Amino acid sequence: MPSDLGSGFFLVLEGGEGGGKSTQAARAVEWLRAAGRTVVQTRQPGGTPVGLRLREILLSPETGTLDPRTESLVYAADKAEHVATVISPALERGEVVVCDRYVDSTLAYQGAGRAIDADELARVAAWATDDLRPHLTVVLDVDPEVGLVRAGRAGDGHDRIEAEPLEFHRRVRQHFLDLAAARPDEYLVVDADRDPAVVHAEIRAALEARLSQVGPG
Amino acid sequence: MPSDLGSGFFLVLEGGEGGGKSTQAARAVEWLRAAGRTVVQTRQPGGTPVGLRLREILLSPETGTLDPRTESLVYAADKAEHVATVISPALERGEVVVCDRYVDSTLAYQGAGRAIDADELARVAAWATDDLRPHLTVVLDVDPEVGLVRAGRAGDGHDRIEAEPLEFHRRVRQHFLDLAAARPDEYLVVDADRDPAVVHAEIRAALEARLSQVGPG
Repeated sequence: MPSDLGSGFFLVLEGGEGGGKSTQAARAVEWLRAAGRTVVQTRQPGGTPVGLRLREILLSPETGTLDPRTESLVYAADKAEHVATVISPALERGEVVVCDRYVDSTLAYQGAGRAIDADELARVAAWATDDLRPHLTVVLDVDPEVGLVRAGRAGDGHDRIEAEPLEFHRRVRQHFLDLAAARPDEYLVVDADRDPAVVHAEIRAALEARLSQVGPG
Repeated sequence: MPSDLGSGFFLVLEGGEGGGKSTQAARAVEWLRAAGRTVVQTRQPGGTPVGLRLREILLSPETGTLDPRTESLVYAADKAEHVATVISPALERGEVVVCDRYVDSTLAYQGAGRAIDADELARVAAWATDDLRPHLTVVLDVDPEVGLVRAGRAGDGHDRIEAEPLEFHRRVRQHFLDLAAARPDEYLVVDADRDPAVVHAEIRAALEARLSQVGPG
């Protein structure tokens, strides 16, 4: 296993709006705990007290339009605090971290979505996270036309992002798929437009295979 | 004049606590306006609505200890928004921007003060500001033992930073002096432990010389 992950396991759930990340995170956590693992369930942005205040700035409709660099740097600040104070310590204790969104969301939303240099973005995010990469990233893939309706029903408050045009969400989706294709060993792309139990079974199978490679946490 | 500054002039006031930056900024602005210049007086952090919310996070005692990378990235986000929405537009309109603190404060406080890689910090700050550098940076130099007493009296609310030990403030001071020594053409270091009118006269003389080089704004 990579030395920078301690003896823990780092699982990230990614994808556009309405892919069911919260539902699948909850089910994965439940399964992991039943399997005897100690799990830290968390999210980006907002996984720390400072991150919550940054998340408020990022997602509140009253913030209005942010300069793209500002937005990237606020996301990066959230990540830095989250990795340093929550994720890395948990991994060093040998625990499993289940995180709703991580670096790929920055790359997908800011990079593909907002026309900002992708290499620079990746460099800032890598610095913020001290180059910590997940063992496994699950991309909950869903057509934005379906996902946005589901997200609207869930009312999860991502108003600034949901308000972007459909074409924006299509580019975001493609960016997640491109990231997964570039490192297939580190990704599982699942069709999220199915029964949540079926989606969970696929994620569980991938987790079982990977956790057995990493050994007991 | 540098092409990235439009036809405007970018003045930054730097230095440790209690050097009289606010007083000198006010006097410089007054003098520039009397000389017929259009002036934008601003500051970092907190020169934009989003920056004010970030400044609150950075300077509020209840924030507690931030990871050094988090702190740097929040400062960088403040700078990005400030340059994109306030400083660059003003310079493009040919105005004079007088800014209380800028990139050097990040380098001095986070770099010298908090043991974080100086090159990485400089790279993030340069990206945040789109490499925009001041025409002139005035360092209001004062012994921290004197400056901290003055800052305490002024009660300007930088509680988290003022609470650092004296040795921290000494390293910050040295870092400002080192930055000035590395680019003497872009800096004026003034002894700030003197009558404000004397300090202002030195700053005014430097401004007169530089503004005549740049031409009318």
